[in-house]
Amino acid sequence: VSAPFRHVAIVGAGLVGGSIALAVRRASPAVRITVVDRPDVAEAALARRAADDVALSAEEVRGVELVVLATPIQTIVDALTTGHFAPGSIVTDVGSTKRRILAAANEADIPAFVGGHPMAGRERGGFAEASADLFDGRRWFLVAGDRTARTATERVAAFVESLGAVPHEVGAEVHDRTMAYVSHLPQIVASLLMRRVEVEVGTPGLASAGRGLDDTTRLASSPTGIWQGILESNADFVAEAVAALSEDLGALGHRLDEADEVARAFDAGRLARDRWLATRSAR
Amino acid sequence: VSAPFRHVAIVGAGLVGGSIALAVRRASPAVRITVVDRPDVAEAALARRAADDVALSAEEVRGVELVVLATPIQTIVDALTTGHFAPGSIVTDVGSTKRRILAAANEADIPAFVGGHPMAGRERGGFAEASADLFDGRRWFLVAGDRTARTATERVAAFVESLGAVPHEVGAEVHDRTMAYVSHLPQIVASLLMRRVEVEVGTPGLASAGRGLDDTTRLASSPTGIWQGILESNADFVAEAVAALSEDLGALGHRLDEADEVARAFDAGRLARDRWLATRSAR
Repeated sequence: VSAPFRHVAIVGAGLVGGSIALAVRRASPAVRITVVDRPDVAEAALARRAADDVALSAEEVRGVELVVLATPIQTIVDALTTGHFAPGSIVTDVGSTKRRILAAANEADIPAFVGGHPMAGRERGGFAEASADLFDGRRWFLVAGDRTARTATERVAAFVESLGAVPHEVGAEVHDRTMAYVSHLPQIVASLLMRRVEVEVGTPGLASAGRGLDDTTRLASSPTGIWQGILESNADFVAEAVAALSEDLGALGHRLDEADEVARAFDAGRLARDRWLATRSAR
Repeated sequence: VSAPFRHVAIVGAGLVGGSIALAVRRASPAVRITVVDRPDVAEAALARRAADDVALSAEEVRGVELVVLATPIQTIVDALTTGHFAPGSIVTDVGSTKRRILAAANEADIPAFVGGHPMAGRERGGFAEASADLFDGRRWFLVAGDRTARTATERVAAFVESLGAVPHEVGAEVHDRTMAYVSHLPQIVASLLMRRVEVEVGTPGLASAGRGLDDTTRLASSPTGIWQGILESNADFVAEAVAALSEDLGALGHRLDEADEVARAFDAGRLARDRWLATRSAR
């Protein structure tokens, strides 16, 4: 099969952008890859053969067929608002929330914009952590803009499939609300739980903690930087999710000595998890 | 070295009681082990050589030097309140909270009671999951009663060391408050988070969830049965912990669009986790 695009520009070669470059190279060695990033990152990408050439901005890359914006959310929005993309090129992104980015693309009237969000990450970011197999078997959300041609979405879907991912079309609202619960809420819970436990019991108390706290707070090790933009651009849905869990906690906190109430809550959690794990293993 | 006790009775051969029996056998093959449990469990213990003999109650075991109460918390309390232990025998337990159990032992005037709590568990319970190495390197809290002789505590400490554990003396209040934060709060968070996420996004939304939600909700798979007694007997401290986290969530939920506030919370969580992991790896 021929590659969906013969020349790809990747703006931001961090964990995700760098992994896209490496996965493009793995799938289609002849595709030309231009990386747009700081000189040290661009240098590292060239050294690992994740880039054929580098540029200072996507606008100066001639003949590019696909531009992948792989920077923090606000930088993606700024690029869509102020950028001039080569006529005929398709533009996509990898931002973790989609409403604000789609709004910017629609506003800027970028005809061939297809929003994207790969469900893949690591505890650490940066090009040094990038790898060609980051997306293998992972879901990759695609969100079409108001005026996006069907063929553009289909080509981006073929592109993410070539990286090993499973494309999944969705609307921006559903995407962002779902992420508020399955991703952003667990992240906030992990960070706030870890902070609260240390405040209350300190180092001596933590010396008594085991695998349970370790699992429940693992996400607290995530880098802070990307989360500010994610939460700010999804604040309404995340606030709804956070308030719901806060109320759940408050409600159970007053009924801890009611065995039936505790059993109801715990059974519901365990059965929900069993159902979830069953659907995962069935895939 | 000689075994701290030559004849041990274990009341309740579930995951913890059964593992104690197997660990006693591993450490000192000549120690006599009497198991008190339902006939089918007792049979399984005999078959795995975790028991030399079985009994219907601890009271009918003659010449026993150590009685280990390894049942749910309320059953431990009942045994301490109504039981008659052989004169000269030391009594210990493995309950996950300690104030109520120590109060019952003090009230019943059991002179040689030493409360215990091994920090070891599995996602599943029952004798079938028991293993001799469950306690290797794990902390085992010991809480002396009001009139417990020092020698009794020292003998129980030697006993848990012989099982591979690290004895750690503590007061019942400090123990229970610490557990409220490092163990009971994460458990509640995991269960309520899993339930809430399923309610809000259902199976289609959960199909988009990844390792983050998986880690954060792993504890939701714990069996409900033991948790009713744990939370009920520690309701005051757990309610305090739950309310604190509920307030943390409520506070951040209103400030998701303030990047500095998000950074403060996330940095605090990450640094707290880094400090905790550093002390663990230094041990």
